[in-house]
Amino acid sequence: MNSKALEDVTVLDLSHLLQGPFATQLLADLGATVIKVERPGQGDLFRTLTFNNRWLGGTESPNFLAWNRNKRSLALDLKATQAREVIYKLVEKADIVVENFRPGVLDRLGFGYEDLKRINPRIIYCSGSGYGDSGPYLKRPGQDMLIQGLTGLAAATGRGDGPPVPVGAGFSDQVGAMNIVYGALAALYWRERSGVGQHIKVNLLAGMLAHQGQEMLMAMNFETDFERPNSGIGHPGMDAPFGVYPTKDGWVTVAMSPYSRLVGVLGDDSLLRYDNPKDLFEKRDEIWARLAERTATWNTEELMNALLAVDIWCGEVKTHLQAEQDPQVQHLGAISYYDHPIAGRVKVVAPAVSFSATPAEITRPAPLVGQHSREILAEYGFSEDTVNALIDSGTVAQSS
Amino acid sequence: MNSKALEDVTVLDLSHLLQGPFATQLLADLGATVIKVERPGQGDLFRTLTFNNRWLGGTESPNFLAWNRNKRSLALDLKATQAREVIYKLVEKADIVVENFRPGVLDRLGFGYEDLKRINPRIIYCSGSGYGDSGPYLKRPGQDMLIQGLTGLAAATGRGDGPPVPVGAGFSDQVGAMNIVYGALAALYWRERSGVGQHIKVNLLAGMLAHQGQEMLMAMNFETDFERPNSGIGHPGMDAPFGVYPTKDGWVTVAMSPYSRLVGVLGDDSLLRYDNPKDLFEKRDEIWARLAERTATWNTEELMNALLAVDIWCGEVKTHLQAEQDPQVQHLGAISYYDHPIAGRVKVVAPAVSFSATPAEITRPAPLVGQHSREILAEYGFSEDTVNALIDSGTVAQSS
Repeated sequence: MNSKALEDVTVLDLSHLLQGPFATQLLADLGATVIKVERPGQGDLFRTLTFNNRWLGGTESPNFLAWNRNKRSLALDLKATQAREVIYKLVEKADIVVENFRPGVLDRLGFGYEDLKRINPRIIYCSGSGYGDSGPYLKRPGQDMLIQGLTGLAAATGRGDGPPVPVGAGFSDQVGAMNIVYGALAALYWRERSGVGQHIKVNLLAGMLAHQGQEMLMAMNFETDFERPNSGIGHPGMDAPFGVYPTKDGWVTVAMSPYSRLVGVLGDDSLLRYDNPKDLFEKRDEIWARLAERTATWNTEELMNALLAVDIWCGEVKTHLQAEQDPQVQHLGAISYYDHPIAGRVKVVAPAVSFSATPAEITRPAPLVGQHSREILAEYGFSEDTVNALIDSGTVAQSS
Repeated sequence: MNSKALEDVTVLDLSHLLQGPFATQLLADLGATVIKVERPGQGDLFRTLTFNNRWLGGTESPNFLAWNRNKRSLALDLKATQAREVIYKLVEKADIVVENFRPGVLDRLGFGYEDLKRINPRIIYCSGSGYGDSGPYLKRPGQDMLIQGLTGLAAATGRGDGPPVPVGAGFSDQVGAMNIVYGALAALYWRERSGVGQHIKVNLLAGMLAHQGQEMLMAMNFETDFERPNSGIGHPGMDAPFGVYPTKDGWVTVAMSPYSRLVGVLGDDSLLRYDNPKDLFEKRDEIWARLAERTATWNTEELMNALLAVDIWCGEVKTHLQAEQDPQVQHLGAISYYDHPIAGRVKVVAPAVSFSATPAEITRPAPLVGQHSREILAEYGFSEDTVNALIDSGTVAQSS
C-alpha cells in the first residue's frame, strides 16, 4: 500500500511563475513525482523576481522558493530540435502535464495536448492561462492583479473615498493553482474508470469570478453593485459591526455578531439607537466611527478577552511575523523549513491539509536550475553519451 | 464510460455556511451525487444570511444560492434518536462525507470519523474548521474575516495610514473549500490503490498561511514585515509602478512592467530620474502620485490602448456588474443561470474549469430545505411508512 496519496503519479511540469508551480507543489506534497522543466540558465522566470530586491543566500528568490519544494529540475531548452526527443520520452510515462505558457506557444513547439495525447492517450494535460485560449483578450497579458481589477475584487475592497484596492497576495494565481489541482485530480480519478486522459483548461478570469460567486450572484440578480464604505467595515455588502476596529495597541476584527451584545461590552448605551437592520447598513460608517472611539480605549488583549467571554466573533489583526508566532499556528505546526544548498535553512509554510493515512511531507527543497537533469535523463533510459551530447549542444543543462 | 468525472461518487454533505458547501458544489459540478443534510425548518444557516437584508423571491439568500446548486436536500434533525438509523444507512453507500461543525459536535452525536469508518471503511471523511480540532483557539469562532486578520492578509492590504483592510470576498472560506476538494479527490484516488478511506482535516488558519506562502517566506526569512504603502501600489512588497491608477473615467491596474516604457507612454521625462531599483521601492508613494497625475488626464480606453500597444501589463478596474458584461467574460460563457422554484431565474457564475472529456454542468438549482427528503430516503430503501413516521416525529421534514 502506498504511503503517499499520489505516490504513483508522475507530473511533467512545464509551468512557471505562480499558478502552475503552486499547483504542482500541491501534488508534490502528496508524493507525486514532479519533474520541473526549466530553460537552461535563467530557469523559471520567478527565480528572477522578488520583493524589494532582496534575495536569500544572495541569489535565491523567496517567491520561487515558496512554490517549488518537493520537485526536481530538468533544464531543457524547449525550442531546441532535440527537445522533442526528451519531452516525448518523458510523456510516455507521465500522468499529468501542467503548463501555463501563453496560448498556442506549446502547440507550435510540438508539445500541445494533441501532440502529447498521440504519444500517451492517458495523459492529463492541464493548461493555465489568464483569459482562456481564445477571445478578445487573447493577446492581453494575464497577471494576478490585473484579474483582481477586472473581476470586481479590487473595486469591492478598500475605502469608498480611496482607490480600489488589490489584496496583498496573489489570490488570482493561487485560485488558478487550486483549480488546476481540482481538474487534474478529478481527471485522474475518471481515468481509473475510462482509461483515457483529457485536456483541463483553467483561466484566472473565470476562476476569480467563481470565487466571488456570492458577490456576483448578489450584484447580477439585484442589478446593483456593492459600494465600498468609508470606514473599516470589512466587506462592502456587510452591515455594522462587521469590520476592523482600532485598539490602543493594534486592531481587532469583529465578524457577524449581535450588535447589542457588542455595545454591552463597550458600554455606551447611546449606541443602541442604531440597532435596526436599516441603520446598521445605511449608517455603517457613522456606527463604525463611534464604535472605533470606544474600542480605541482598550488594549487588544483586554478587548479580545471581553469579547470572547460573551461569544462575539473576533480576532486580533496580526502581521506575517506575528502570525508565525501565533500560538495556534505554532500548535498546528503550520510553519516548517527545508535546507537549501544556497539559501541555507529556509522557513516555509507547511502543507495545510491533514491526511490521516497519507500525510503530506516536505522531502526536498526547491531545486536549482537543472540540478537533476542527468539523474532524470538516466532514469528515462538516456545513455551518458546521449546526455553529454544534449548538454554540449545546449539543449540540456546540469547545474554544478 | 461515465460522461462526468465524478459520476459514481456519492457525497454526504453535513456542512453549512460557505467552506463546506462550496467544496461539495465543486464536486457536484463534476457529477457527484451530493446529499445535503440540513436541519428541518431553518436549514443551512447561510439561508438566513444575506447582504443589506435583500432576498431573491422575497425569501431566498443569494449567498446560499451561490454555493448549493447541483445538490439535493434531506432535512434531518441530527440530534433526533432516529437520525442515526438514517445517516448510517446513507454512509454505507457514500464515498465522501464533508462536515464543518465545531470540533467534537459530530463525535458526540455518533457521526464522527471513527463511528462512520466502522460502518464503511472506505469512507473519506473531510472536516473543515477554523483552527483545527485542538489547541489554544479551540473554543474561538472561526470565521473568514477573522482568519484574514490573523494571518497577515488584512495587515498587508490597504493604505499605510489607514486601517488594515480585509478583502471584499470570503477567501479564507473559499481557500478552505478548495483544500477540502484537494484532500477529498487525492484520497479518492488513493482509495483506488489501497481500498480504504481516511480522515482529511482542513482548517482556515493553515490554509490562508499557505496561500500567502511567498509573503510568509519573505517575512520569516528576512525577519521583516511588509509595510503597506500610502498609495495605490498594489502589493506591500512591490515597487512602482505596480498598482492601481486613476483615469478621467475610472481606474487601471499596471502590473510588473518596465518603468521607462510606462513613462514613455505617459510622456514626462522628468519621471525617468526614479528609474532605479532603490527609488522604485523607497519612493513608490511619491512615484505613484506623480504617475497618477499623468494617468488622470487620459480616458481609460485611450490609456489601455496606448499601454497594450507597447505590451505593458495592464487592465481596467471593473465592478461586478461591469465584469458580467466584460467581453472576455461573455466570450468564455463564465456567466450562467438556473431556474429556482421561488427565486425564479437566477444568474450565477458558471463552473470555472474546462474538462474536454467530462465537462462540468449545472443540472439543478440550489434546493429548498428538505425538498428531496422522501425521494432520497426511498432510494435508500426506507419504506413509505417508515418515512411517514420519521416525518411525524420531526426527525425528517419534506418541503411542500
